[in-house]
Amino acid sequence: MMTDRRDRARELLMLLGLQVLDSIERGEFPVLHIPDRRTSNIVYDPSRGRFVLGGSVQVRDARNTKHLRSFVQLMWAATFAKQLLESGRTSSLRDLYYSSEAFGIDFRNQAESNRIVTDLESLTGMPREEMGIFPDEHSSVYGPVTMRYTVTGYEGREVDLTVSPDGLPIGPALTTAEPVDTDAEIVLAVESGGMFSRLIETRAWEKYHAVLVHLGGQPPRSARRLMRRLHDVLGLPVFVFTDGDPWGMHIARVIVSGSANAAHIDRLTVHDAEWIGVTPADIRDYSLPTDPLTDADLKRLSDLSIDPRYSDPPWCDYIVEFRSLGRKAEQQAFSRYGIDFVVDTYLADKLGQ
Amino acid sequence: MMTDRRDRARELLMLLGLQVLDSIERGEFPVLHIPDRRTSNIVYDPSRGRFVLGGSVQVRDARNTKHLRSFVQLMWAATFAKQLLESGRTSSLRDLYYSSEAFGIDFRNQAESNRIVTDLESLTGMPREEMGIFPDEHSSVYGPVTMRYTVTGYEGREVDLTVSPDGLPIGPALTTAEPVDTDAEIVLAVESGGMFSRLIETRAWEKYHAVLVHLGGQPPRSARRLMRRLHDVLGLPVFVFTDGDPWGMHIARVIVSGSANAAHIDRLTVHDAEWIGVTPADIRDYSLPTDPLTDADLKRLSDLSIDPRYSDPPWCDYIVEFRSLGRKAEQQAFSRYGIDFVVDTYLADKLGQ
Repeated sequence: MMTDRRDRARELLMLLGLQVLDSIERGEFPVLHIPDRRTSNIVYDPSRGRFVLGGSVQVRDARNTKHLRSFVQLMWAATFAKQLLESGRTSSLRDLYYSSEAFGIDFRNQAESNRIVTDLESLTGMPREEMGIFPDEHSSVYGPVTMRYTVTGYEGREVDLTVSPDGLPIGPALTTAEPVDTDAEIVLAVESGGMFSRLIETRAWEKYHAVLVHLGGQPPRSARRLMRRLHDVLGLPVFVFTDGDPWGMHIARVIVSGSANAAHIDRLTVHDAEWIGVTPADIRDYSLPTDPLTDADLKRLSDLSIDPRYSDPPWCDYIVEFRSLGRKAEQQAFSRYGIDFVVDTYLADKLGQ
Repeated sequence: MMTDRRDRARELLMLLGLQVLDSIERGEFPVLHIPDRRTSNIVYDPSRGRFVLGGSVQVRDARNTKHLRSFVQLMWAATFAKQLLESGRTSSLRDLYYSSEAFGIDFRNQAESNRIVTDLESLTGMPREEMGIFPDEHSSVYGPVTMRYTVTGYEGREVDLTVSPDGLPIGPALTTAEPVDTDAEIVLAVESGGMFSRLIETRAWEKYHAVLVHLGGQPPRSARRLMRRLHDVLGLPVFVFTDGDPWGMHIARVIVSGSANAAHIDRLTVHDAEWIGVTPADIRDYSLPTDPLTDADLKRLSDLSIDPRYSDPPWCDYIVEFRSLGRKAEQQAFSRYGIDFVVDTYLADKLGQ
């Protein structure tokens, strides 16, 4: 992690500690005001082009014995994060959960410790990655970009993201690396590992001047953050290529406008990212092999139809079209026309080259 | 893929085609003899130190209309593989399934096409990876090893497996790369991504002179094949570090002696690989935080207790110990003693350094 960003994170955590200490020294019970993350407090911010938290806050008052448990858990999580920052280390969410035992901090389960970390994020306005706390899952990336590492032991070392023909995982090191330079003109995010490998091996990344990002389903924040940085720092527009089903569509929607449970975090969305497909129209136009929508798919469509992120075109239209089609198709389905069709024809149609 | 290995694979597939063609030209219905992969035909081969297929075969006779469907599917899969080899390309199992539509070959679902690929493997004695067919899932690797790529576009290029501090995915390119040189003395395979990151970042790989392999649960064959090659080519002994539960134990057992559904494939097992833990004894000796064994865990122990791979010590003893303990622990559980304990103490105890 860059030293200045690490310093800023450490300062924010120390500030939090000093505020609490100050109350205690004045003989008062410390009180924290944590932004309310319930969906009732999520509103669309047109200026940021994404969903953000509204003005409602939750009070955590050390005088209230019902609040004491989570108050102490939060203080411990902040201490743990500060120690990570000071030693230049990282931790997974799972490790944080287990580490709590060493300090006699009681979490019922990892869901509880994850929630406390999210509290800490919304309290400080700082994503956990900047405090050195990462999830287990990884997505991966491949393409003509030079990144400069900032993690301990690799500070200043540069890596070309074509070094491994299998791609590079977007782990803690790459999430905190700085984009330096690129020959690419776009970011092309793809849902499945098979499609990612196909686009590397056919040199589609060269043909379309693309940095490829493998999302692996609804992508971890690390992948969304990296896409945002490639967009901001290197000026690359982002295109998203998923399966043609409600789940694939929602992957794209989250990349564009944010997820509910990360609405308190900035710099994860790319407001002008574009879902190229597989759209319901593609399924029809390319006569793709399909499967019927399952009950789970229909339930998902029904949930999304009352989600504010789907109230306007083109997103509300996609829901209507999926329902009328009653079918879905994977991005691999283009293989029915031969394994090169997706690169030579579909992507050429969609990316206009 | 190395050219000579690719040529050998192509020759085997052509030989299969010529045999079928020869029957037809002699006016006979072609007949294939496929080794029987049912568990009733799986036997332990002490000389290979793993489970192999016995002498029973299944006949696929083109005269029999019930056999015709799978006969044609098999011929198509062989043709598809041959085309991959000739163009230096790879395919995922999923892509193979979808590609079949382009040729009017009917598979009910991917399970059926996967089974046909396995038929082709056991008929030719050649793993699908050598025909360029790979699964979607990846595991990853990190450590002081130089590998030389053989995939198209990267032939002869060398990569140091410490190039990315997040590790490198074991995809098609790394699976077919050649180990060239190493400063490591052991392979240390770990189950979880969190532990893998921890061991990289604490430089445990340096302290223990280890190549780290992230298994990610029951590892894909590509990870098992890479460990075997590091063992054979570079002479590295293999140690396996998993969660302390029946599933983690079985990950180690499969690395040592093979899985039932890959019993027809050579060069995946490391017969002298060692499970360092978390063993039931470790759970007790290190007073690890535990969870009770669930019904699914107990059912698993019960299945394994009648599996021939668990008929001898120490494996049969582990089952007894898990049952008497009634509890399990994750490898992350050592974090209760601080995040460095697993490296400074547990691994030192187990690896004797």
